[in-house]
Amino acid sequence: MKYSPLLAELISSLTCLPGVGNKTAQRMAFQLLERNREGGRTLSAALHNAMEHIGHCKQCRNFSENELCEICQHPQRSESEQLCVVESPQDVMAIEQTMAYKGTYFVLMGHLSPIDGIGPAEIGLDVLEKQITEGQYKEVILATNPTVEGEATAHFIGQLCQKHGVAASRIAHGVPIGGELEYIDGNTLTHAFSGRRAL
Amino acid sequence: MKYSPLLAELISSLTCLPGVGNKTAQRMAFQLLERNREGGRTLSAALHNAMEHIGHCKQCRNFSENELCEICQHPQRSESEQLCVVESPQDVMAIEQTMAYKGTYFVLMGHLSPIDGIGPAEIGLDVLEKQITEGQYKEVILATNPTVEGEATAHFIGQLCQKHGVAASRIAHGVPIGGELEYIDGNTLTHAFSGRRAL
Repeated sequence: MKYSPLLAELISSLTCLPGVGNKTAQRMAFQLLERNREGGRTLSAALHNAMEHIGHCKQCRNFSENELCEICQHPQRSESEQLCVVESPQDVMAIEQTMAYKGTYFVLMGHLSPIDGIGPAEIGLDVLEKQITEGQYKEVILATNPTVEGEATAHFIGQLCQKHGVAASRIAHGVPIGGELEYIDGNTLTHAFSGRRAL
Repeated sequence: MKYSPLLAELISSLTCLPGVGNKTAQRMAFQLLERNREGGRTLSAALHNAMEHIGHCKQCRNFSENELCEICQHPQRSESEQLCVVESPQDVMAIEQTMAYKGTYFVLMGHLSPIDGIGPAEIGLDVLEKQITEGQYKEVILATNPTVEGEATAHFIGQLCQKHGVAASRIAHGVPIGGELEYIDGNTLTHAFSGRRAL
């Protein structure tokens, strides 16, 4: 016996969510059908609206349903002389939560990865270069992830900045606050030593 | 900074799924937006269709988008003299996968639980009683879960059957196949001993 067509379709559609396999999808489908049809309807509408209407901010490439996202629209921030380059919208959220940065962002939506066919154009570096040359920016802060690809991307953008005479900086790598030296990996410790600052 | 309204709505709607908290919902939303918009659209449509069109089979109360589910429509099975009472649609699937039972089902969609306000009417025992009295059934197999509530429900339905002169049986409880005696809990072992059969 198979599930009825609509139920089978719901279960197989749910497996497109990350981390959801067949068993979890079944549990989700039955939970919604048995106990939360209203929630299922709301989710269906929210999914539809998000998939159809959320695009990218034309300035910073972050997700936004408007032409310009909230940060790029912000009167003070849009005049900032700092531009922070990050890999993903989640990174923007993480930095925003610190309340430590008041400039604008540029979201690459990925990192350079020639082996996957992701070159400078795929992560919008042409748009970024235009903003660096034409914009009001005095400093570009490179906040890509400290992975091999993230470092390569930062290096590439650093060279772009140099070409156009705009200062570029890389966020500091070192021992995280609250961490204990004995549990920190050697690579991070090496960075912490080479990046030491005079007191 | 908050997420844009549509994105925030999508994330909060996703948390209605069982086992999905805020962080997982964010990951799901970004995954769909960045890599799988088509999957998101399909899921939205599947959810909509399922929530609007899946109802209950009027005969067995299992989920079905038609008036009668596939099993109740089946020409041979609908004439069966056996009726198997289970708690949930998932139980029907589990039994169907064994291919060992060829009768019809009655799905309670729960179990008796007076403390939660779930009495005989809530789990459709009035419908079941009507089927027992009017139907062609010679045996009612009680396959509710071996929990306190499941046992109570089985006992209650057993008495219903007795009242109407229909034989009722309970599925066997004992040591599962492939299990090892030393790891089986005492309660199950007690059942296995009291339910022993002559060779």
